[in-house]
Amino acid sequence: MKEKESMALSVKKSEDISTWYTEVIQKAGLADYTDVSGCIVFRPYAYAIWEKIVKAVDDRIKKMGVENAYFPLLIPEKLLKKEAAHVKGFSPEVAWVTHAGDSKLDERLAVRPTSETIMYESYRNWIRSWRDLPLKINQWNNVVRWEFKHPVPFLRTREFLWNEGHTVFATKEEAEKEVYEILDMYDDVLKEYFALYGVKGKKTEKEKFAGAEYTLSIELFLPNGRAIQGPDSHYDGQNFAKAFDIKYLDKNEKEQYVWQNTWAITTRMIGVMLMIHGDDKGLVLPPKLAPLQIVIIPILFKDSKEKVIKKAKEIKEKLKDYSVKLDDREEYSAGWKFNEHEMKGVPIRIEIGPRDIASGQVVLVRRDTLKKEIVKIKDLSEKVKKTLDSIHNNLYKNSKKLLEGGIVEVKNMNDFKKAISDKKLVKALFCGEAECEDYIKDETGGASSRCIPFGQKLVTGKCVHCGKQAKYSVYFGKGY
Amino acid sequence: MKEKESMALSVKKSEDISTWYTEVIQKAGLADYTDVSGCIVFRPYAYAIWEKIVKAVDDRIKKMGVENAYFPLLIPEKLLKKEAAHVKGFSPEVAWVTHAGDSKLDERLAVRPTSETIMYESYRNWIRSWRDLPLKINQWNNVVRWEFKHPVPFLRTREFLWNEGHTVFATKEEAEKEVYEILDMYDDVLKEYFALYGVKGKKTEKEKFAGAEYTLSIELFLPNGRAIQGPDSHYDGQNFAKAFDIKYLDKNEKEQYVWQNTWAITTRMIGVMLMIHGDDKGLVLPPKLAPLQIVIIPILFKDSKEKVIKKAKEIKEKLKDYSVKLDDREEYSAGWKFNEHEMKGVPIRIEIGPRDIASGQVVLVRRDTLKKEIVKIKDLSEKVKKTLDSIHNNLYKNSKKLLEGGIVEVKNMNDFKKAISDKKLVKALFCGEAECEDYIKDETGGASSRCIPFGQKLVTGKCVHCGKQAKYSVYFGKGY
Repeated sequence: MKEKESMALSVKKSEDISTWYTEVIQKAGLADYTDVSGCIVFRPYAYAIWEKIVKAVDDRIKKMGVENAYFPLLIPEKLLKKEAAHVKGFSPEVAWVTHAGDSKLDERLAVRPTSETIMYESYRNWIRSWRDLPLKINQWNNVVRWEFKHPVPFLRTREFLWNEGHTVFATKEEAEKEVYEILDMYDDVLKEYFALYGVKGKKTEKEKFAGAEYTLSIELFLPNGRAIQGPDSHYDGQNFAKAFDIKYLDKNEKEQYVWQNTWAITTRMIGVMLMIHGDDKGLVLPPKLAPLQIVIIPILFKDSKEKVIKKAKEIKEKLKDYSVKLDDREEYSAGWKFNEHEMKGVPIRIEIGPRDIASGQVVLVRRDTLKKEIVKIKDLSEKVKKTLDSIHNNLYKNSKKLLEGGIVEVKNMNDFKKAISDKKLVKALFCGEAECEDYIKDETGGASSRCIPFGQKLVTGKCVHCGKQAKYSVYFGKGY
Repeated sequence: MKEKESMALSVKKSEDISTWYTEVIQKAGLADYTDVSGCIVFRPYAYAIWEKIVKAVDDRIKKMGVENAYFPLLIPEKLLKKEAAHVKGFSPEVAWVTHAGDSKLDERLAVRPTSETIMYESYRNWIRSWRDLPLKINQWNNVVRWEFKHPVPFLRTREFLWNEGHTVFATKEEAEKEVYEILDMYDDVLKEYFALYGVKGKKTEKEKFAGAEYTLSIELFLPNGRAIQGPDSHYDGQNFAKAFDIKYLDKNEKEQYVWQNTWAITTRMIGVMLMIHGDDKGLVLPPKLAPLQIVIIPILFKDSKEKVIKKAKEIKEKLKDYSVKLDDREEYSAGWKFNEHEMKGVPIRIEIGPRDIASGQVVLVRRDTLKKEIVKIKDLSEKVKKTLDSIHNNLYKNSKKLLEGGIVEVKNMNDFKKAISDKKLVKALFCGEAECEDYIKDETGGASSRCIPFGQKLVTGKCVHCGKQAKYSVYFGKGY
């Protein structure tokens, strides 16, 4: 059968992770390519994962007092140019609308690469007094950045989906408090939903967001030795406030510039999660993001078919608090279904045949370890709950091990270069200068600073590259 | 106070509904204009309404087996041209991306006006056999149509939000069954959430969707005498299947073209709802779409403030199954708060002062009728439930009365023209010919056919315009 053949992966993950990734994305039905290079289809199986991510983040930010809104997709060129560092960062990758129907537009319109500029024009009008603050608005939308010569589904796409939070405060203190709270919120979602461990830290001057005072982020580490940035949270200070003239009257009737933050999580995180958790059989999905958590596969023989399907339906009913499917298609063999649901990373498979019924049991297979276990039907609900928790914890533990096992602390540039060529994440003392960072990138064949991890004690020592007084300990690595 | 003055509307709804509408939209904080003509900001208060609409529709379509996905925003020009009627309908209003960064693109990319063309390219690849059908995919996204010389927030915008369902079936029968089921689903949402009555029917040949075999829709009627189309559901037959070569192998291993439907509800419906339900004091929101259902306003005097706020908090807790807010801001007077929440259309206001506490009661004011009632605190939960239901039913009843009261049945063109100039919805026998419809439009100063309402018995009689044998009874009106 054509379908049967197509269900196996042609390579092992450890041997050729790029091929593994592009195959698994397609065979699990997550994404598809389109006629526009770099723009993918998020197929229903991937979009269902995104819906769960959206809900997890949305519930949390609403509790923090953030409200959702929607601003226009198209941004006039003159607006985009208002904040100098910002436009410099984004203009090389803007997709421009120049015509509508047969008419040329008077002014080019940017397809939003991010929405600071169009949002802050409105903010200027909405904010008058201290009573209007804080203003906490978020958007869930699509953005276009025409970058990347070699697009990769989810990880590097020219259009992606994200949230963009844009909050405004009367004081610096409130803004700086929130920028850390938001990072913690994202970290909680990464841990509780993605089952992913990341390092929280601050970006160096060179790597911060175009327009920010500083950028906080969660950095992750892929099995191919590449570092990749997860969600981020930017403290913009008064940069945009001054560029867009966003002021308020304080309680003493004095005009003050506002203080602002921006923050985001994107569909890129789906790719990070797939690449870290997957194995040679396909996807391994963390239970809280899996569109389907349990698949029940009846083992069908002619004379006992009805009895087995009846029992399988009872079991499905018993597990209805979970996302559960009974796969009773007769045009596919049980073995084919095992392969398909392993490819799709369904956390738990339950097999039930006529002999199982006689002994009041089922076979339960967990996707992460592929371990089989015989479970009494009366104990099944309890066992499923424990197994889903155990899968989640196991995936999280492995992702932590992957990152921590990837770290090499170095004292000199020779060790630095070796560690990078060994596909490691380098920890080193650093002076913080952008120019020094440029040299490091050159000498190591492309390693960039990933972050200045939180929780550092006062650093004493010399910069690994220039030998000047170090400011902090920094992670370096090749970015994905 | 500046804020106080700005809270009143400058006109009555019945006297100048256009001014009333644009004022109420701004003063209630629903929308704002931007530097891009025709593209508005959906402010949090409006976006929260949209989120409720999305959830209502999304829950229903998921139960019908529809899955959500996301396809690219940008569509290559060659794809858009594949179905002749479709491209003819949309190309005059396409926003074109021609450049990325500093580079000119090889091929222009359309900002999606709708996604048939990019989706069906994928469908062709995904659909191989009868096992792959039905395929039921929906998107929630933004689309751009550069139309309308006089944009109006929500009602006529160049970018809007919507769902676009694109379903594929093995047989004509299945497709035609679904296209009606979807219209019923939308009608249910209009009735249960929007509290709006509409007429279900089929569009004439002239008014059907570009690319469809036929279009079903729900038609609504505005207080200004204009008809406006609500959600629609298109039966596309095999038009796109043939243009995009979407075929499947049936159970006899024979190739067959698929049968397709598309269907949508848009943010335009927010505007329709606002315009129908609102009054001279501002918005009147139906309880199931209101972001805030109940506002509690404490009447504060110096010596009893703490006691009143304490009681108000208890009442809030009692009503926590609803969306409820205690407005205890001290920088605004109670009267100002009454006006503000009336402007925002909050369905129920509860007032509580020191004397109320003494008698164990509150004052309850319903937004639709503005009737005040004294309610014992012990009866409040029950009373709130009944009042919200009553508001919903009252709004629905009024919208039905508005539409039915707007209908005039005519037998000749003189009466037809008079009814149109009287801002009525005309019911007339019609031959169904597009050319005849063109003449009617000319002679009446712009009336178009709205729909052929469902449930007609066999029609005998002559076309109101050409005198030929009539096919059916049709509603005509000036479109918004």
